[in-house]
Amino acid sequence: MIKKQLYTPGPTEVPPETLAALAKPVLHHRKEEFKKLYFSAVSNLGSIFKSSGEIFILTSSGTGAMEAAVNNFTSPGDKALVVVSGKFGERWEELLETFGVETEVLNYEWGSSAAPEDIKNKLKGRDDIKAVFATLVETSTGTLHPIKEIAEIVENTPASFIVDAVSGLGCDVIKTDEWGIDAVVSGSQKALMTPPGLGFVCVNEKAKNIYRDNDRKNYYWDFKKASARLENSQTPYTPAVNLIAGLDQSLRMINSEGIENVWERHKMLSEAARAAMDKLGLEVFSESPARGLTAIKIPEGKSFIVKELKERFGIVAAGGQAHLKGKIARLGHMGYADKSDILKLIAAAGLILEDFSGLSAALKAANEIFKKYAE
Amino acid sequence: MIKKQLYTPGPTEVPPETLAALAKPVLHHRKEEFKKLYFSAVSNLGSIFKSSGEIFILTSSGTGAMEAAVNNFTSPGDKALVVVSGKFGERWEELLETFGVETEVLNYEWGSSAAPEDIKNKLKGRDDIKAVFATLVETSTGTLHPIKEIAEIVENTPASFIVDAVSGLGCDVIKTDEWGIDAVVSGSQKALMTPPGLGFVCVNEKAKNIYRDNDRKNYYWDFKKASARLENSQTPYTPAVNLIAGLDQSLRMINSEGIENVWERHKMLSEAARAAMDKLGLEVFSESPARGLTAIKIPEGKSFIVKELKERFGIVAAGGQAHLKGKIARLGHMGYADKSDILKLIAAAGLILEDFSGLSAALKAANEIFKKYAE
Repeated sequence: MIKKQLYTPGPTEVPPETLAALAKPVLHHRKEEFKKLYFSAVSNLGSIFKSSGEIFILTSSGTGAMEAAVNNFTSPGDKALVVVSGKFGERWEELLETFGVETEVLNYEWGSSAAPEDIKNKLKGRDDIKAVFATLVETSTGTLHPIKEIAEIVENTPASFIVDAVSGLGCDVIKTDEWGIDAVVSGSQKALMTPPGLGFVCVNEKAKNIYRDNDRKNYYWDFKKASARLENSQTPYTPAVNLIAGLDQSLRMINSEGIENVWERHKMLSEAARAAMDKLGLEVFSESPARGLTAIKIPEGKSFIVKELKERFGIVAAGGQAHLKGKIARLGHMGYADKSDILKLIAAAGLILEDFSGLSAALKAANEIFKKYAE
Repeated sequence: MIKKQLYTPGPTEVPPETLAALAKPVLHHRKEEFKKLYFSAVSNLGSIFKSSGEIFILTSSGTGAMEAAVNNFTSPGDKALVVVSGKFGERWEELLETFGVETEVLNYEWGSSAAPEDIKNKLKGRDDIKAVFATLVETSTGTLHPIKEIAEIVENTPASFIVDAVSGLGCDVIKTDEWGIDAVVSGSQKALMTPPGLGFVCVNEKAKNIYRDNDRKNYYWDFKKASARLENSQTPYTPAVNLIAGLDQSLRMINSEGIENVWERHKMLSEAARAAMDKLGLEVFSESPARGLTAIKIPEGKSFIVKELKERFGIVAAGGQAHLKGKIARLGHMGYADKSDILKLIAAAGLILEDFSGLSAALKAANEIFKKYAE
């Protein structure tokens, strides 16, 4: 008997309190009781997005929410600048092209982080670029992008700034209003400790004006309709009621811990994971590592790591995507993750590598980080 | 945020599948659907008790089931021999005295295991001793008693043999019929991976004749009534229906793994725990350690271990009872426990002790045991 535990960077482990909330009776989505729940979930999301803007909860995956953003914030023939350094940057690019937007792409090597200066140069003197699309955390490489700095640059241009924070919201710092981001997209299944099935788009005034004036034909993704319904804590179509009940439970847990504390916890876990992996001879892949996952380079001849983590210890980690397949392993520690999860991961990795002096150093390094944060 | 995980030697962690089964709609206990469930639970218990005898499921704690055994298998004025080497041996003694049975006690030091020879000597030429009461696993010290050997001795005397296996059933080997034990008592909340609230008594033909001929007045614990109802998969009074649904789910998981494999898994986990604790300088307390928990001596000045396991890593272990309070820690690995739980425990203990070379050796020792069992 081997218990499985998700260490994947989405979906992630869900707290038992949330599993119990998912099992509550189905509410009818047009009745008062659901409206109260929906109002609560939207308000709780606001504290996590750090925004007083509109928040749409979509019954979709994160990609659905990205598609909704593209369809509401762009029109065919528009020009957009896209920051790409991995699979999810590419997803913006693919969506924009699918929906007739001309893209200019700032390509970075996978594992690299965008240089705000490059965005500044690209936008200089350009009033034809309608929007800049970027990613808070590139899940395919575990890389954090300097969203605050990019937002500062884009704010001084006519372009709007739209960020995919599916993987970052709830673990890496994002302050939507304060940083002046026009729209932030996210999903339920990562640091928000809820099963997959819900996408979110948080929209400020500037972005609201864009979708209002947009003449692209939308139906399922129509933010005008969604906005009108939101005033009454409603959705245009039948929402995933029980997922929203689960989401609200998880959000209340996050807000009860306090989002700043949650960010700090993820900082601690990621520092401990990185320090420990280093001592085990597993080099961190990203030059700008995120808080919610640690991507490591798989050493020559050690391709068994991900498989053995699962088969021997029930630790379900993720491998690399696209050209990184077989080359990196991605170890998630986002959402419902604590120090003991990191200890288990380190111990299991050390056993698989049979590097017991490295393991001792790894656990010592993790302990020092834990103690630093306990002060 | 620190996740709590029970490493106590009861109650123990419950699998999510069982938590889900507990949340099923309440069945009425006199209807066909419940009878099917009850029949299934009793049959599944039979595979774990290794008995084709009668099995009563009582809505009670394990102590309730012990009281039921005392009341059904003894009469006031009877004489009984009790094997005592800890708190649960004492519990037999207290129950027997409460219900008017004269006890002769074979006392062993806490942490010691009974010597079958002593029981043989005590019973020699004595036809006045009606029953021998013993404990499979003394939870207060983590000690396994040689029940098979004691059973062989008692079988050749007029006495019946009644065993408390609350802590042992489902992790340490017990073969009720093959070993000739007349009655075995257990409970839901230990290796059977179910919340507290159910007690069990497994009864062979000899014990059946005893309670049938017994003239002690019983009501809630009346096995005659329970036996008549059991034929129709019923209980005399309203049973804890949802706990039985949860129990049946857990028992099906145990039987699907196979009870021999479950015993073997616990053997592996306990060997790994002991080897690792030894390398961390934590001496095993019991001279005959059980498979479901490891009791360790707390070294001078290290009384913080149990507290820090919980506060720093959410590992809820147990301290010592009675005169062992503050002197031992009891680390449970029974029921829903796997290798990764042991790794987490070892890593956390090593960090608390800040013994990183010991920790390296401890994890290496555990790994060798895991690998031996994987062959």
